[in-house]
Amino acid sequence: MSASINRTIVLASRPQGMPTEDQFRIQEEPIPAPAEEEVVVRSLYISVDPYMRNMMNNTSSSPIDQVIRGGAVGQVISSRSGKLREGDIVSGMWGWQEYAAVKADDLQRIDPDQAPISTALGVLGMPGLTAYFGLFDIGKPEPGETVVVSGAAGAVGTIVGQIAKLKGCRVVGIAGSEEKLNYLKDDLGFDAVVNYKSDAFDSQLKEACPGGVDIYFDNVGGPVSDAVIGLINQKARIPLCGQISTYNLDKVDVGPRIQPQLLMKRAMIKGFLVYEYEEQYPEAIVQLARWVQGEKIQYTETVLDGFERLPEAFLGLFEGSNTGKLLVKVAEVE
Amino acid sequence: MSASINRTIVLASRPQGMPTEDQFRIQEEPIPAPAEEEVVVRSLYISVDPYMRNMMNNTSSSPIDQVIRGGAVGQVISSRSGKLREGDIVSGMWGWQEYAAVKADDLQRIDPDQAPISTALGVLGMPGLTAYFGLFDIGKPEPGETVVVSGAAGAVGTIVGQIAKLKGCRVVGIAGSEEKLNYLKDDLGFDAVVNYKSDAFDSQLKEACPGGVDIYFDNVGGPVSDAVIGLINQKARIPLCGQISTYNLDKVDVGPRIQPQLLMKRAMIKGFLVYEYEEQYPEAIVQLARWVQGEKIQYTETVLDGFERLPEAFLGLFEGSNTGKLLVKVAEVE
Repeated sequence: MSASINRTIVLASRPQGMPTEDQFRIQEEPIPAPAEEEVVVRSLYISVDPYMRNMMNNTSSSPIDQVIRGGAVGQVISSRSGKLREGDIVSGMWGWQEYAAVKADDLQRIDPDQAPISTALGVLGMPGLTAYFGLFDIGKPEPGETVVVSGAAGAVGTIVGQIAKLKGCRVVGIAGSEEKLNYLKDDLGFDAVVNYKSDAFDSQLKEACPGGVDIYFDNVGGPVSDAVIGLINQKARIPLCGQISTYNLDKVDVGPRIQPQLLMKRAMIKGFLVYEYEEQYPEAIVQLARWVQGEKIQYTETVLDGFERLPEAFLGLFEGSNTGKLLVKVAEVE
Repeated sequence: MSASINRTIVLASRPQGMPTEDQFRIQEEPIPAPAEEEVVVRSLYISVDPYMRNMMNNTSSSPIDQVIRGGAVGQVISSRSGKLREGDIVSGMWGWQEYAAVKADDLQRIDPDQAPISTALGVLGMPGLTAYFGLFDIGKPEPGETVVVSGAAGAVGTIVGQIAKLKGCRVVGIAGSEEKLNYLKDDLGFDAVVNYKSDAFDSQLKEACPGGVDIYFDNVGGPVSDAVIGLINQKARIPLCGQISTYNLDKVDVGPRIQPQLLMKRAMIKGFLVYEYEEQYPEAIVQLARWVQGEKIQYTETVLDGFERLPEAFLGLFEGSNTGKLLVKVAEVE
């Protein structure tokens, strides 16, 4: 730990449509010192997530020339808080920087014996919690129901499908490559999988859902959702988690209006953010960790090595480059 | 009561798009006799409602050459049931016929002292119950919230607005004529009204909702809904009651996809049918009757006189010809 330079990545210009690498800029600055009640963390893993694209449209949550915010796991290298000490592993939202001074109250301590620390950004972190609350609180799955998941091979979708299986549902995953589909079916136990890039997507989806769709966990939006919503059953539930197909559009997305179908099927659709469930995180993490430890659910990570690869990793989200949680590894635990 | 001919109206051909009068045919037949546990009713008021247009698309709920089904109020003229006797006033779903033999179990007795009997098809019947459960169970209004109602001058909309006012909400009504708007504002106490036929509808709606929209009770769909959904607040609720603007379209209706907005606003939209709440009807009718008797809510009826005017009345629904509940009066109480 003899480095004295801190690298950070800032938003150089506001993206219109699909972002490009030159909209991110690496800066160098001294490693900060902790103020009172703060610690300084050294980043170990930094997360890239689709929601960050939406934040980049917002001048207040993503100011130009400021560090990109997002989830990260790191190690405390100095502390002026009674709550954390040097060596502790923590997660927080300090974002794209190698070192950060953070209030101890804004960090969660991670137990490295419970699971690999990177899972705090995946199955035991925001994506796992998103899957858990979206499926259980909004989807309310019942045994025997058909659950369709879009973005099924992503950080959230892989967990949604597996916990829906644990609840006795029939699970249909939608993803964009044969490799991902094979993974979902062979490794994660999805009952059926459909490639949304197929010319015959609509008919293949229909074949994969002979009993219609009771729950549609939507990470994607756009024409994929049009097709799924066309197959919903009476009293279907649609947890609306993401709309990644639309995040880089620079004009309003147009499609068939869904309200007539929602009315005819007495169906419900609800947008949510995992932060609404913050008070229930601890119990959910206990449950998810139990499933992980019992090998009831598997998690997959796609890890890029090197802080400077954060923009590349982030852009990869929109090209479907990842299976499971996409992470950048920045440093080793000391 | 010396008539011996029963007139009925049947669906002569299945409408594509906007129905025409020649798709309905008046037939004459003998007045039926009651089977065991049945009564014969003479129709007094027959209801026309937007949902009936959807039923006409369905070969099983609306077979060709069969009587159009729908709500009606009538008087028992002969009975083979211990539950009802001659002279009783009842409501049921026997539809477009002057006389009908109906199982007593499929009829509800009406107390003519509680309110005018026609209200069993309006404020104390299906439309009032639809307003009540859609607003309270799905909308969950809180004092101070802004409630927007489309189709505000209709049978359901007039009740939604008034009971939302009783709950302390700010109520904005959308309708299609100055006469209706004046009625909503001056007679029913809506806080603001907007004409969807105005060229400046979008900006007028925005002006009418300076604090955004917390609940959108949607009877209409289409571009009106696009505009309202553009103004929703965080955690907005959208009870989806009707989509009258789309019922006569003969192709898929296209518009801006609403999921990105629902996600960003963590909003919920839910289609419903009043029949889901059947077990709670009695308590709701007691409450609605209390409000009517206490003049806390007003009801309006548009009544056409004469059985043969049913097709004309029905088609008028889609031309916005009615304020409040649209009914056809068929006969007087004996």
